[in-house]
Amino acid sequence: MKEYVIGIDIGGTFTKSGFTDRDGNCFAEFVMPTDAYENIEDYLDNLFSELKKAEKKLEGPFKILGVGIGAPNGNYHTGTIENAPNLKWKGVIPFADLVNKHYNLPVRLTNDANAAALGEMVYGGARNMKDFILITLGTGLGSGLIVNGDLVYGHDGFAGELGHVNVVENGRKCGCGNHGCLETYASATGIKRTVFELLAEDSRGSELVNYSFNELNSEMIYNAAVKNDPLALKAFDMTGKILGKKLADSVAHTSPEAVFLFGGLAKSGDYIFKPTKKYMEENVMRNFKNKVKVLPSELTDKNAAVMGSSALIWKELDK
Amino acid sequence: MKEYVIGIDIGGTFTKSGFTDRDGNCFAEFVMPTDAYENIEDYLDNLFSELKKAEKKLEGPFKILGVGIGAPNGNYHTGTIENAPNLKWKGVIPFADLVNKHYNLPVRLTNDANAAALGEMVYGGARNMKDFILITLGTGLGSGLIVNGDLVYGHDGFAGELGHVNVVENGRKCGCGNHGCLETYASATGIKRTVFELLAEDSRGSELVNYSFNELNSEMIYNAAVKNDPLALKAFDMTGKILGKKLADSVAHTSPEAVFLFGGLAKSGDYIFKPTKKYMEENVMRNFKNKVKVLPSELTDKNAAVMGSSALIWKELDK
Repeated sequence: MKEYVIGIDIGGTFTKSGFTDRDGNCFAEFVMPTDAYENIEDYLDNLFSELKKAEKKLEGPFKILGVGIGAPNGNYHTGTIENAPNLKWKGVIPFADLVNKHYNLPVRLTNDANAAALGEMVYGGARNMKDFILITLGTGLGSGLIVNGDLVYGHDGFAGELGHVNVVENGRKCGCGNHGCLETYASATGIKRTVFELLAEDSRGSELVNYSFNELNSEMIYNAAVKNDPLALKAFDMTGKILGKKLADSVAHTSPEAVFLFGGLAKSGDYIFKPTKKYMEENVMRNFKNKVKVLPSELTDKNAAVMGSSALIWKELDK
Repeated sequence: MKEYVIGIDIGGTFTKSGFTDRDGNCFAEFVMPTDAYENIEDYLDNLFSELKKAEKKLEGPFKILGVGIGAPNGNYHTGTIENAPNLKWKGVIPFADLVNKHYNLPVRLTNDANAAALGEMVYGGARNMKDFILITLGTGLGSGLIVNGDLVYGHDGFAGELGHVNVVENGRKCGCGNHGCLETYASATGIKRTVFELLAEDSRGSELVNYSFNELNSEMIYNAAVKNDPLALKAFDMTGKILGKKLADSVAHTSPEAVFLFGGLAKSGDYIFKPTKKYMEENVMRNFKNKVKVLPSELTDKNAAVMGSSALIWKELDK
């Protein structure tokens, strides 16, 4: 009988889900909005109804082994989502328990970036690595730290929240309530804010004058950079500078073999990788210079996040 | 037959060594200068001759099981000391191999702060903890990260070099060659530099006007603070601010149960702990607020560093 794990990736904007097998294939995947639901019950009603529909697409007899969930501020130890800055549901949400009421199966939850890091290790470019960091550059910035071949959960269950380390004193307001957090600069939203800051300084020669704050996204900034738009190029350099400097700090913490960049902004290729690598090298101590690779995630297809979430269960079953 | 492990702790100024037993007792310990030897051979000749003398003080029949070494920029995987900013021996020193030629026994080496963290876990205040960070505040700043009950060595073998993360852009010159490293602010030397900066700004009302740069040490600054010297108090606040802010970053990496402060400057009690804790709390993201303890090391006696170094071997023997 075919065996599947349900993978659910909860992003600030969209939720992606699907059924994965042990070989890294994803079936009956679907996408639904996250931010359209003000309360968690409505969101879950819709999620379960979508999963029911998706399940009908699976062929032949099968068995579901568990549910793996990646979510912002997801706590592995308790299965809760706690005060997630990018989600509308505030406070502590007992998400794994709520899912468990519907599916009487093992349910594991961690932050979405931790899940992506597991996916990179199980299916992606980190298959032979024991020490690496994965950074997700989406609406926010997430991170997963792998040390000695295991995810770092930490005492409280949500280690790896690099998006909320301070990089600019009294800097940009962050959804978490603090100011100057890394993700307010280094993320798809962060680079947009940088573009608007630069437009205010000197807008000459840039096609980015034509977009509202709501319209502009990181793909448009990438497209402008490809056409040598000076402001777009400067925005990428500034983003890579802040990210690269902070990665130098992270390297000093865990001495990784590589840092993987994942998510929308990472698709900008050299425009983001070159400055990130350059400023990381400028700032790491001598022992680490020219040793730590900065690589694109190899989970580039649309199912990457779902694979990562499901990897939580597959990894546990392998133990 | 009594069993011992030789513990060697190499600091920038002094080397401490002794023979430890499994119960956490230290025998025949001695101290010798580190910085008096321009080349490593002379240093080792003296170290081995001191160890020989010390060995004669041990009573009854005994067996030496191995040698554990804590050293700045010590690489666990290769047993080398690599480009240590605080040592006179430059380049890559195959220290474990050199010791191994003299003692045909297991020799393990890691950075001195990693060794202290192991000591804290085996003999000190972290006996029941699986996730914590230990910071040494001596001539420089070292750090050891414990994740899931194990030391984080990282891909290259020297993870946990928090002393050399950048905290001030184009800041103070560091022995590592970079500028603005954490240890140039938060260490016994760092607070002295801060005092001199403050004296330049406004020296009124401070007894610290009476010391040369060479004379001043962190104990004198502590003694002045106890007498409410305004400049000394301000220096502690500034030191705790920079350290606390950076610890907020480290907490986001590994979500520790506690941060232990160890070494000369940590002996200043509330003068350093209060501002460190305060600024850490101000800067951590909400999920971590009021959860992470900042504690004094419980390895406060003079043998702490030696115990930590020897714990490298005892821990391995227990496996």
